[in-house]
Amino acid sequence: MTQPYRVAVYIVPRRGILDPQGKAIADALHALGFGGVGEVHAGRHLVLDVTAASADDASAQVTAMCRKLLANPVTEDFEIASVGTAR
Amino acid sequence: MTQPYRVAVYIVPRRGILDPQGKAIADALHALGFGGVGEVHAGRHLVLDVTAASADDASAQVTAMCRKLLANPVTEDFEIASVGTAR
Repeated sequence: MTQPYRVAVYIVPRRGILDPQGKAIADALHALGFGGVGEVHAGRHLVLDVTAASADDASAQVTAMCRKLLANPVTEDFEIASVGTAR
Repeated sequence: MTQPYRVAVYIVPRRGILDPQGKAIADALHALGFGGVGEVHAGRHLVLDVTAASADDASAQVTAMCRKLLANPVTEDFEIASVGTAR
């Protein structure tokens, strides 16, 4: 029996890879007076509703999606942030 | 005494707000054969290195940054995902 799960995953540039978006955000924060900010890394946070047999299955499906489409394996790392039942 | 903290925050479109990027991702996943995917919401995941007096202070600073610059208060919700010491 399958049921809907809500899986959150984040995808961030690998450490050491140039991150122009993060740099732009850090510069903007400095200009606004947030002097305590050092490096900023900007990635994506995706929340997917997935029909699956179990939480593990939902997590495995999203891992496969990240490998196949959502994350760039050369420049990005991804991690499943949470798996819950949808509603 | 201040020390460096690493704060992760995610910013996602508010539920009910049109999310064309999420829709495009869902369509691409369907085309790749991931039929179990329903709605997808696409947001940003930011990791900030912040110098602060405590973890609470670091979290409060990042909340102020989200209010002032990082999140759009009309269309987006944000949440601090984690606060840790940097290295």
